[in-house]
Parts: sequence; C-alpha cells; structure tokens
Amino acid sequence: MLLRNVFLLLLLVVAAASSSRADDGYRLWLKYDRIADAAPRQQYQRAAQFIASSGTTPGVRTAAAELQRGLSGLLGQAVPVVAAAGSRTGGIVLRVDAQASAGGQALKPEGYHIFSEKNNLVITGRTDRAVLYGAFALLRQVQTRQPLAGLNVTSNPRINFRLLNHWDNPNGTVERGYAGSSIWQWYELPERLDPRYTDYARANASIGINGVVINNVNASARYLSAEYLAKVAALAGVMRPYGIRVYLSVMWAAPKVIGGLNTADPLDPAVKQWWAAKSDEIYKAIPDFGGFLVKANSEGEPGPQDYGRNHADGANMLAQSLGRHDGVVMWRAFVYKANSNGDRFKEAYEEFQPLDGKFDPKVLVQVKNGPIDFQAREPFHPLFGAMPKTPLLLEVQLTQEYLGFATHLVYLAPLIKECLEADTYAKGPGSTVAKVVDGTVDHHELSGIAGVANIGADRNWTGHPVGQANWYAFGRLAWDHMLSPETIAAEWTKMTLTTEPAAVRTLTNLLEQSRSIYVRYTTPLGLHHIMGESIHYGPQPWLAKAGRPDWTAVYYHKADSVGLGFDRTAGGSNALALYKPEVQKQWGNAQTCPLNYLLWFHHVGWRQPLPTGRTLWNELCTRYYTGADSVLWMQQQWAAAKPALDPALYADVAARLQTQRKEALWWRDACVLYFQTLARQPIPAPLVPPARSLADVKNLVQLYQLK
Amino acid sequence: MLLRNVFLLLLLVVAAASSSRADDGYRLWLKYDRIADAAPRQQYQRAAQFIASSGTTPGVRTAAAELQRGLSGLLGQAVPVVAAAGSRTGGIVLRVDAQASAGGQALKPEGYHIFSEKNNLVITGRTDRAVLYGAFALLRQVQTRQPLAGLNVTSNPRINFRLLNHWDNPNGTVERGYAGSSIWQWYELPERLDPRYTDYARANASIGINGVVINNVNASARYLSAEYLAKVAALAGVMRPYGIRVYLSVMWAAPKVIGGLNTADPLDPAVKQWWAAKSDEIYKAIPDFGGFLVKANSEGEPGPQDYGRNHADGANMLAQSLGRHDGVVMWRAFVYKANSNGDRFKEAYEEFQPLDGKFDPKVLVQVKNGPIDFQAREPFHPLFGAMPKTPLLLEVQLTQEYLGFATHLVYLAPLIKECLEADTYAKGPGSTVAKVVDGTVDHHELSGIAGVANIGADRNWTGHPVGQANWYAFGRLAWDHMLSPETIAAEWTKMTLTTEPAAVRTLTNLLEQSRSIYVRYTTPLGLHHIMGESIHYGPQPWLAKAGRPDWTAVYYHKADSVGLGFDRTAGGSNALALYKPEVQKQWGNAQTCPLNYLLWFHHVGWRQPLPTGRTLWNELCTRYYTGADSVLWMQQQWAAAKPALDPALYADVAARLQTQRKEALWWRDACVLYFQTLARQPIPAPLVPPARSLADVKNLVQLYQLK
Repeated sequence: MLLRNVFLLLLLVVAAASSSRADDGYRLWLKYDRIADAAPRQQYQRAAQFIASSGTTPGVRTAAAELQRGLSGLLGQAVPVVAAAGSRTGGIVLRVDAQASAGGQALKPEGYHIFSEKNNLVITGRTDRAVLYGAFALLRQVQTRQPLAGLNVTSNPRINFRLLNHWDNPNGTVERGYAGSSIWQWYELPERLDPRYTDYARANASIGINGVVINNVNASARYLSAEYLAKVAALAGVMRPYGIRVYLSVMWAAPKVIGGLNTADPLDPAVKQWWAAKSDEIYKAIPDFGGFLVKANSEGEPGPQDYGRNHADGANMLAQSLGRHDGVVMWRAFVYKANSNGDRFKEAYEEFQPLDGKFDPKVLVQVKNGPIDFQAREPFHPLFGAMPKTPLLLEVQLTQEYLGFATHLVYLAPLIKECLEADTYAKGPGSTVAKVVDGTVDHHELSGIAGVANIGADRNWTGHPVGQANWYAFGRLAWDHMLSPETIAAEWTKMTLTTEPAAVRTLTNLLEQSRSIYVRYTTPLGLHHIMGESIHYGPQPWLAKAGRPDWTAVYYHKADSVGLGFDRTAGGSNALALYKPEVQKQWGNAQTCPLNYLLWFHHVGWRQPLPTGRTLWNELCTRYYTGADSVLWMQQQWAAAKPALDPALYADVAARLQTQRKEALWWRDACVLYFQTLARQPIPAPLVPPARSLADVKNLVQLYQLK
Repeated sequence: MLLRNVFLLLLLVVAAASSSRADDGYRLWLKYDRIADAAPRQQYQRAAQFIASSGTTPGVRTAAAELQRGLSGLLGQAVPVVAAAGSRTGGIVLRVDAQASAGGQALKPEGYHIFSEKNNLVITGRTDRAVLYGAFALLRQVQTRQPLAGLNVTSNPRINFRLLNHWDNPNGTVERGYAGSSIWQWYELPERLDPRYTDYARANASIGINGVVINNVNASARYLSAEYLAKVAALAGVMRPYGIRVYLSVMWAAPKVIGGLNTADPLDPAVKQWWAAKSDEIYKAIPDFGGFLVKANSEGEPGPQDYGRNHADGANMLAQSLGRHDGVVMWRAFVYKANSNGDRFKEAYEEFQPLDGKFDPKVLVQVKNGPIDFQAREPFHPLFGAMPKTPLLLEVQLTQEYLGFATHLVYLAPLIKECLEADTYAKGPGSTVAKVVDGTVDHHELSGIAGVANIGADRNWTGHPVGQANWYAFGRLAWDHMLSPETIAAEWTKMTLTTEPAAVRTLTNLLEQSRSIYVRYTTPLGLHHIMGESIHYGPQPWLAKAGRPDWTAVYYHKADSVGLGFDRTAGGSNALALYKPEVQKQWGNAQTCPLNYLLWFHHVGWRQPLPTGRTLWNELCTRYYTGADSVLWMQQQWAAAKPALDPALYADVAARLQTQRKEALWWRDACVLYFQTLARQPIPAPLVPPARSLADVKNLVQLYQLK
C-alpha cells in the first residue's frame, strides 16, 4: 500500500515536473538534465564523486557551484563540494596556481589545463577565471558525452577581449533586436537585480566571453551620469564572479550634454579634465570596468571631427583619460560619408588607414568583418592587414539584421569563419584575418573580437531557437578561431537539442548549410544591400531613393540594360586596390573571380557565360530558385530529426521554417521580377515564372514599411 | 531496496520539480498547485471525482479541459472527463442549455448557474461561453478555499463588451508599456502560434474578458491588409475557444494608405465601398470578428474632420460598413485641441455632447474615466450622464503610464471603483457612472468597458508582479462592478500569492491603500498632470514649455505667488458647469470641496486654511511627506507577509518597493521645492527640508529625458 502510494505520488510529481519542463529554451546550452543511458552515466559518476575546491575567490566559488549544479543534474546524484580531496579519489579538483603550465608552456592568464592526478581530475589555471573556463569545459565534455578518463586538455584563448556588444537603448528597445526588449531593466536598477542577469553571465562565461558592452553604440549620455553608473555598477557586480567585465558605449558629446561644458573638442583642456574625472568616478564604482566603445562621426553621431580633429585625436584623448586604470578604448571604423558618386566600400579605409601608428597603445580600432554592413556575404574588410601598427578588433553581427530577423534559420559560424580564414597577405601568405586580429601577424598584445548580441528578453533569449547557436558559436570562435563551424555546431546541438547521433549529424549538416542557402535566395553571386529600406526586412532591389544615396539598393547592384554588379576594379571605383596584390588577383578578373564574390567587384553582362555554363541571368535565376527550394530541404531535415527533439522546440522551429520558406519565395520573386525588367529575358526553363507580379511584391514590401 | 530507490528517485524528481517551480509569475492567478492541507483537499476531492461533459463545442471542451487541469493540480489526483455522469455522483457536470435559468430568471447569454443536483455540481448556462465562465468560477472557489457543498451561484455579467485594449505597435513595441515588448509576434504570424497566446486567452477567459483590441489606437493601416488579416485570423483562432473576440484599431486614412483611394472622406462613395468590402473580407477570415476601435482627429491621427465631417459622420459610415455582420464601432472621445487659453477638461465634452443622438446604433463612444488623461485621481468624465442616447464605453488604463510604470505598487481597483461609483445625477441620485456604462440608466442594449492592457512579453506578463492584480481586478469589475476592491484583492492574493489568512489580510490591506499613497506623494489635493514630459516618468511640475501648452505642467497647476490649482468654477474655466447641479454643488465651493478634488476645481491661496486645520501650503507639504513615508509602511507590510510568500516573488517586489521609496522621495522633493519657489514659505516643522536642491532634482529629471 505504501509502495503503491509512493508510486502514485511519484507519477504525479513526474507529470508535474515534466509538464513544467517543456523546453522553452531558457536554459540555452546549459541543460543539465540527467543522462538517460545508465552506462555512460555511471562512468561519469565514478569520475565525479566530489568537487574539491579550497578557493574562496569569486571565480573559483562560481566554478565549484556551476560544476556542482551541472554534474548533480547530469549524473542524477548530488555531487558534494569539499575543501580538499585529501586521500579521496574519483573526484574533481579545482586549483588556482599562479605558476600553472601545461606541456612545459606557461598558460595564458585565462588558459586552463585539465589533467589526471592521483585518480582525480585537476582543473587548473593561473587565475580563478581560468579555472571557471576549465569547469565549463569539463561540463561540456560530459554534456557532449566525451570520456573523462585520461583527460588531458590545455586550452588558451587566442584573443584577449571577447566581447558582446549590446545595441540596447535606455528605453528598453534593442536596435536591430529581434528577440524582444532589452534584458537590462534600467528603471529597476540598481535596487532590483533580475535573476536573468545571472543566467546571462553563466551563459557567457561558459563560452569564454569576458566582456559586455551593455548599451547601444548610438549612445545616450545618461549612462555616464552618477545615477546610471550606480545601475551599471550593480550589473557589473553580477558579472564579476563570472569573469565578465562591463564596458560602456559613450556618446562623444557627453561633456556638453551632461557635463555642462560648451564643447566636446578632444584637445580642449576642460574636456580632457572632464573625461579624466569621469574615468576616475567610473573606476571608483566599478574597479574592473573594461573601457569605452565609441561610434563617432558616423551616421549622425557626434565626434571629434565636429571640432576639426580626427579619430585618433578623439580615441587618444579618451585613452589618456583612463590614466592608470586598466581599461581600453575601442573606436569604431564604421564611418562613411554620403557621396552618390563614391564607393562606401572605400570610406572607412580612407579615413582610418592613414591614422595607422597614430593611436594610443590603449586603443583598438573596431572593424566590421566586411566593408559595407553585415551583409549575408562580404569580402573581408580591406583595413585588415592594412593597419599593422594598430590592434584591430573584429566586429561581427549575431543579431540577424540582414539575415532574416528571427524567422530565418541561419547558422553564422560559416560566415564568421569565412572572414577569419580570409588571407590578407599582409605579411605574405597565411596572414589571415584571424591572425591579424589575434595579434600574431603584427605582434600586438591587445587583441579583440566583438559580436553584436542577438539577445533579448524573449524567454529563449534569441527569438529563433537556433539563434542560440550563433551566440554559442561566437563565443567558441572568439576563444579559439581554429575550431570548425561543424565542430561547434555538433557541440551546440548535443548540449542544446539532442545527443542522438543520427539526429546530431542531420542537424549539424542543416546548420552548416543554412547560411549558403540564405545567401542563395537573397543575395547570390555577390549581390549585396538590396534589402528593405530602413527596417532591412525583405527584398527591395528597386529602392532608388532614400535618405542617402548609399542607403538605396541601386547604388550597390548597379543593374542596367547591360548587366549587373558593382565594378570595383581599376575601371570602376577601384576599391580592389585597397587589398594586397594577391587578393586583387583573386577577385580582380571577372572570368576567374569566385562566383560568390562576382558582383561585389564586377559589372557583368546579363548574357555573359559563367563557369557554371549558364549566363549570368540564368545563373542568377537558378540560384534564387534553388535557394528558395533549399528551404524545403531544410524543413525535411528538421522533420527527420523530430523524434529526437523536444516537441515544443520542434514545433517552434518547424513553424519558423514555414515562414522562412514563404519569405524565401518573396525574395526570389521580388529579385527575379525586378532584375528581369532590366535583363529583359525570360525565367529560364524549367524554372516556373512567379505567379505574382512585381507590383504585387512591391505592395507587400511597402506594407511592412508603413507606420 | 526497491522502496529505497523509489524514494531516492522521488526526492530527485521533487527537487527538480521544485527548482523549476520558483514562482516566476508566468502562471498568473491560474496556479493549480496541490492544496497542502489534507482536510480541505479531501473535501474537494469528494466533490470533484469526475467531470461530465458531452459538449463538443470549443467553449465546453475548453471548460472541461481547464477544469481537469485545475482540479487535477489542486486536488493532487487525476480527475477524469467522462461523457455523462450516468448514475455517478460526486462529480461536476457541464451543461449548455439554451433555456437555462436561475431562480426563475433567464440567464444572460454569458451568465452561468452553478448548483447541486443529485449530489453532483452542475455548471450550466445558455452558451458554451457561459459554461466556461462557470468553470473558472468553480476553480476560483477551490483556489480561494471556499466550500463547494451546497453551492448555488448565479452570475450574469453587468456589461456586455469587456475588452482589453492593447497599445501594441507592429514593430513589437508597446506604447506606454512597461512589461517588455508586445506579446504579438507579427513577423512569426500566422505560421507560428506562440504558446503564450493560449495562456493569455486562458487568463482573460478566467476573469470574463470577452474581447481584445490587439493593436495600438495610434494605428498602422497595415492591419487591414490581406497579409496582416491572415495573421489576425490566426490569433482569433486561438482566442475563439476561450470566448474572446478579436477587434482592430483602425487608421482612419487606411483607404488612402493601403486602398489606393485619394480620400478618406466618410461621405465619399468610394470610401464607403472600400470599408464595406474590407468588412466583408475581414468577416470572411474571422467570422466572429468584434469590430473597430477608432482614434480619429486626436493627437495628430487622421479623421473625418480632415474632410469637414464630424465624429458621427465617421463612426456611422464605419458602422454601416459592417452591414449585417455582428460587429460594433468604438469611437474614442479622447480629443483635445491645442488652446493655451482653453481648458482641456471641457474639450471632449464640447465636441461629443452635441452629437448625442446622432450615432448609428452599432456605435459606442469610448470615454476615459476622467476628463484629462488617466491621472492618479480624476473627477469622472463629464460626458458620463450627458449623452443619454449614446452607449458610452468606459476606458480605464491598467498600464501605469502616470502611476509609476512597473516599479510602483499601485492597485487600481479603488481608482476604477471611484469612477464607477461616482454619481452623475443624470437621472437623479444613483445615476452612477457604472449604471450609465452598464446601460441601466438609459436603457441601452450595448454596454462596454475597456482596460488599456498592462501586458507585455516579460515572463510575468506585467513587469511588477502586482500589476497582475490590476489585470485581474479589471476583468472582475468589468463582469460585476458591484464587487468591492477588497473582495477582488483578497481573491487575487489567495489565487496568486498565498492563502495564509493573516498574510492575505496584510496584503489585501496593502493593495487597498496603495493608490491613495501614490496620490499623496505625487499629486495630492487634486494636483494633476505635473509628471515628466513625454515619457511621463517622475515629477516635472516646473514644465512650462512643451509641444503644446496642454502638455506642460503649469497649464494644470497654475501655481503663482497667490496660490495653487485650476479654477474651473464660473469664475474660471467653468468646466464645472458641464456637470449636473448636484455635482457642481459637491465640488463647486472651495470651502466644502473634498480635499481630494480641491485643486482640480479651485485656485486656493497658499495660506488658506483647510478643514484639516493646516494652510494649503502646510497641507501640501504634509501630504507629500506622509505619502513618501507611507512607502516605508508598504515595505513593512510586504516584509510582514514574507514567510507566506515565494522567496523569488518576495525579493522581486521588495526590490521594487525600494525603488518606489526612492522615487517617492524624488516626487516629494521635486514638488515641495518647486512649489516653494512660489509659495515662499518654509517646509513646516517637524518636516525636514529636502537635503538636495531644486537644481539637483531638475538635473535628475532631465537625465531621464535624454536621448
């Protein structure tokens, strides 16, 4: 009778627990559900009977707590934390050791070493942050079902500043955010600390992100006020035990707006003094404050050019304001003047390259992956390799501003990796963007990478569940840019979706293909910047008038009766000349230019045959059609994995894929119908011409532009 | 051994379940946790052994499913749904009966009757919606620990249209929303139906809300496009089984913006035809579509006056466009012209009262509770009682635009009730606003009430956990305006926070006092509209210049060296003359006017003695100080209930109360320091003058106004 009641109660409790456990995505990849298979679970249980940690610093305590939480969940049994292993074996030992090394090599301050010692697994490093990263690495081993026996792993981050940039506004909106409102609750801070902040910090620490710029680069001056610094300090207090430093985007005119000065001229003594005092004030409130990010003289933001000074004048004054504080200035190179006869491609280069060597040692120049603006595919930015005396911080975009918002499944690691692996030839072959950024090409001590966050207050953080993979992949690549997108996709899939091997293969392949597919149905062959005006939603290749010429589509695709594409060779804008000769050679000849970059650099005749055997027009149509149809394939792949997936999660993504299919057809129809008005050729058989008219599609696009 | 393993497993599962059960507020008042006390639980178990329902209509199926879910949770045992009770007793029987009556009275279509029959509890009504409301009423009985034995309850809604108005924009922001982004995911619709929509519908149905206007009254025309109607139809499909009809706010110029016409003149035949065709299109997609809400010629929105027509011309054309479809037009009376010498108080009256009798029978005129705009306290709107031939729909605001956003605990039922109970004397004493609105005074068949929703995508829906009480209270009052704020507060507290009797008393009292306290520290004695410009955050009584004179503060408080307050007597704007003589008498004499309304109607000398024995200046200071100090009392009350509260929820509100205290002091200091510059008198002892200066407070206010 007792037994029967217990079973009944058990059933009820299980039912209650599982109903509250429909996967709503909140836990991200930090899912510590009990491993169902007894055999591997027992193996892990034998290797993780306790956690020995004598550390009292926040990072080590965080590491021990996270290991306990994770292992207790995964192994289905409580794992105690003890002060020391003593004579016990079969446990995990956390050890901060200022002299820690691995294989005779000193570890970097954040690098960790996991190894076996006396039948225990030791996680060591020179700092408590290193041990924290090692703890998450160990959990990842278990989550991805890798063996622990004989584990010997050493890992150092290749890039020092691994940052998220939040484009979050003080009113709670997120510029280019598609996952709800900002997670920062400014009206509640500093009194209330949303528990979500801690989970955010855990997620970042688990993938090695060590800094967050919490506010939009189009910055409000208010963040530098005492009122807001108290709020920022409260957030920094949550981040600190997770090895994360807080940074602020600053509004250049802050000394005027909140400082009562009548100028923000960087060479004005009162301005210098104001910033120095402000830095002191900040560091008093936030001793580990990371520094400043600046968008100046760009898209209407104020900057030093308002006073006849240049970017270096501005950046250096700010860097010097930091004095002896341990902070940096990240100065964005995303600048472009309105010039209908120019080429926006060249403008950041022309403004910044001449300043190489003029920056203070505390300044990093932050450069987007490509020369325009986070398009689905861009050639690498010509500044990479062109400013050897300046550490360049790579900025990539995780929020899918130009990649389908939160309804298109696009795994971004291939995009980021394509940039990282691009060879600048700056110091001969092998001078990849990755090696420029990590400092090895030019021997910089400072190195950095930033991802524009795709995070919002949506329950699952990123809107599209697979957006989580982009947050994850960014962190992993920031730590180690040698990792492959496939490896990262498989890790994320196992930790987040399923460990069932066939499903993991299917889903990893789906993720890997997704970005190429997106490019195909939106901007094949090197097309770029043909999306909807202002909101950047859907296609608008016909856009010919906008607030600025370089905000139109025709500025970029230059379609006419002859052909399509932006001639950036010597016969055109000659933007190609910004690259090293080897790069020019690779892209400079329309006959040999890889098709993915063709229309970035060449104006190609509609009837020009391509290496595929098709004319440009026919190839263009073929790519739009096959791209859109590939979304059907994506739907099939997702469906194939269904048995291995949580039903709620499955339904969520399945529905988004339906929308993606609809919108892929929208892009296809809009682009082939519009370009057809210039190419004046039929949609090639066997492709079936769109059932709707160009006017239909234009109406639809216009609808989404309405107030 | 087996037993031991089972227990261990049980412990684990319970631990897992309870850890995922920290109260994050998502479940609102529909918490179906098992009743801990065995004795009452067993009593309920005996009365709810099964649910008998032969109904196959959506509403009855919804009712049966919700009862099953709720009772299974509350009673801790599965409650089966069967087709018929047969000879079984001790169950609950759902019965739709077109002839259902109670006590010899026919039920209204949505009214329910719960009674005992052959040892079963029968929930009956004329429609399946009625049975659904009865089911939620039964669950409420259990949740609030009321007995079921011998239950005999009849309840009819007093008002027919019980609506939420969402001020949600297509881009996902919510105008005057403080709980995150919109819950409507327009980019995902219609393919993806967020599970949250269903929980939203459940919550509304549980309190009798039967219609939702899903978009901002400052409306985008896009909602009337085929593309968006498909999305709206998908939402309507989720709402339908919960008895909820979907309505749209319409942009008056839609025939021009999306219809291709060159006018939106309501008397233009093409415009009429466009709207008629649009209505047909809507009803084809959404057969139970509720109708239109219109904000026209108000705050910059287009309207019939753009064509020399009046509000009735516009409303009637739209009503006639509905043809035989079962829908209504709700036309907002919230209009006011910029006039620095006028009195905004009078403007809606002056525009609408002369139109009484001119409206189509399908039109309701939607009137805010007060004449200005959702201030913390307003006299009732003078249109109530002044348009006997027109059904007036009462609009109240649940989102705390002027009541402290999501950091101030303000229970709004007393505010709403104050308006409902106000006597217009339209047809002699007892012609309360409630009876005007519910149609009994003027014998209208149509009756309606709307609450501007305080709902967003925050996990707990309303930002401040106690914001949920305002959603709840609105629904309950909309159903039965005779309920007391205290009764509703106690219900909500028991269902949402705790059933511990002492804590329920403490919390109910806290809720009841909260609005008076808010008034005291922000706008005592009838002050109004002295909040921060544009965002309406914090105090700004010194605001003298704005986009319009009636957006300043000085327009309303009229402080000068003589005194304070807006003279609306015959000697002033004479707005008082809009009311019936009995009302004029009540408010018209500064000596006898209730202090809560004093400065709404009188310019009172600073040194004028009030019935409290203090001068106006001293009374003003006293109220600001005691109001701000009452927040300390609120904190104490909340702390007193701590043992009965979920720890996460406790901490959340405790932190918000800290912010509330800080901001109450902000209001106090801003107001007494500013008014002191005109009153030129000291802060009366024993009150301690603010430590900060007026300049300090002004700087702080300005900070929150920055970009």
